[in-house]
Amino acid sequence: MEKLTVFFVSDHTGVTADAVGTSLLSQFKGLDYKTLTVPFVDNHDKAMALVRRVRESMPAIIVSSLTDPAIRAALKDCGMPVYDVFDAFSEPLAKFLGIEATVASGHTHGMSSGYHDRIDAVNFSLALDDGLKPERLGEADLILVGVSRAGKTPVSLYLAMQYAKKSANYPLTPEDLDAATLPEVLLAHREKLRGLTLAPERLAQIRNERLPGSRYASLENCRQEIQAAERLMQAGNVPVIDSTRRSVEEIAALIVHAG
Amino acid sequence: MEKLTVFFVSDHTGVTADAVGTSLLSQFKGLDYKTLTVPFVDNHDKAMALVRRVRESMPAIIVSSLTDPAIRAALKDCGMPVYDVFDAFSEPLAKFLGIEATVASGHTHGMSSGYHDRIDAVNFSLALDDGLKPERLGEADLILVGVSRAGKTPVSLYLAMQYAKKSANYPLTPEDLDAATLPEVLLAHREKLRGLTLAPERLAQIRNERLPGSRYASLENCRQEIQAAERLMQAGNVPVIDSTRRSVEEIAALIVHAG
Repeated sequence: MEKLTVFFVSDHTGVTADAVGTSLLSQFKGLDYKTLTVPFVDNHDKAMALVRRVRESMPAIIVSSLTDPAIRAALKDCGMPVYDVFDAFSEPLAKFLGIEATVASGHTHGMSSGYHDRIDAVNFSLALDDGLKPERLGEADLILVGVSRAGKTPVSLYLAMQYAKKSANYPLTPEDLDAATLPEVLLAHREKLRGLTLAPERLAQIRNERLPGSRYASLENCRQEIQAAERLMQAGNVPVIDSTRRSVEEIAALIVHAG
Repeated sequence: MEKLTVFFVSDHTGVTADAVGTSLLSQFKGLDYKTLTVPFVDNHDKAMALVRRVRESMPAIIVSSLTDPAIRAALKDCGMPVYDVFDAFSEPLAKFLGIEATVASGHTHGMSSGYHDRIDAVNFSLALDDGLKPERLGEADLILVGVSRAGKTPVSLYLAMQYAKKSANYPLTPEDLDAATLPEVLLAHREKLRGLTLAPERLAQIRNERLPGSRYASLENCRQEIQAAERLMQAGNVPVIDSTRRSVEEIAALIVHAG
């Protein structure tokens, strides 16, 4: 068939519809398609405008997260398949719970409780990035520890943005690595420490992008630093995650849902 | 009924199952429940361990995003309802497409194409936060502009993390606000500029948390700064978003999907 257009449609940001749709479509190997995300479809006029776009993009399907049944019905009128998470689950869940679903409160909007905590956490993670302000480590929920360029900063920001965790990060310097134990400033908060490690080859590659050919980036130095860091973290009973083949999102989920 | 436990289950990070489930449940007002996210359920042993946890937490339901039908089947065996996005959509979509769904490639894992672009974008956004390194603005996909504390940094980081946008942000200083036009360094990249504004009352509140009682935080000063910033952005034809009642995610979606 002609190239398929997949519309990810939402009455909010579209991030969930996009995630569900992308996962679904990745199950169909060799399928040739393009995607279009249409967020904030939250009234009849916007639904009608979208129907016109879909009709101009045949063949097309819609993967959506739309709380209002009237808007879902309007989209179905365009004759193309609509795969909507509320359509699929609201009614069966209502039956199971014995409670009727209400439309208005469907989406958990960003300004809901927890939102300001997440923004506060992002600001905290920025303020305590890369070993800054160690005197504030007591306020942290989590302290990421590892050698330079082990991937601490993106994980720390993601922990803040997604999970509202006040996450600091602390790079182990060559002086720290020569010591017998982790720095005192970290050991004072031992239960908050989470170690990040990675394969020396990967670390050397990352560091070489920054300082090509330097001793800092050499495989030999990376290997020694990682060995020393892992020894210190083991001695301090710090849980360690290997980030070599894991994404920021995966590492964050492992940290938050550990145990 | 007794307090319900809702399990958000995934063979990946659980973020999608969590988002779908939270939206779904918010439709049922007055429902008393607690949630438990269980990520990385990607083999039979983990599925069985989860079944035991679910059985100990009755009454319970499962909202999930599990690519492997065998794991979904194992969960259903615990007798509680399972609302799974793949269960709901894979088969109808396969029929429509005339292609069989494959299990293995189900989830788009974090290390997929696009992942390194997102990490690069985060590092870029950090490097060009708060007006730093203006000489690199040419590399940016987007440049957020606004007065101090208008919320540029979290939006910039989210644009990078979620959408792989290299987003810089530039605070308009009192000197910038006194000028007749936006700074030359910004006007050189006019098509990349996106303005953020907000209600003076909200800005004063945010600034007062930082510097209580200061002239910087006074309502009068906030009003003047915002007025001047909006005038400059209008004169420069910069699209402006009001962040007063919008979350970071909403602002980012509006910027990315504008037009």
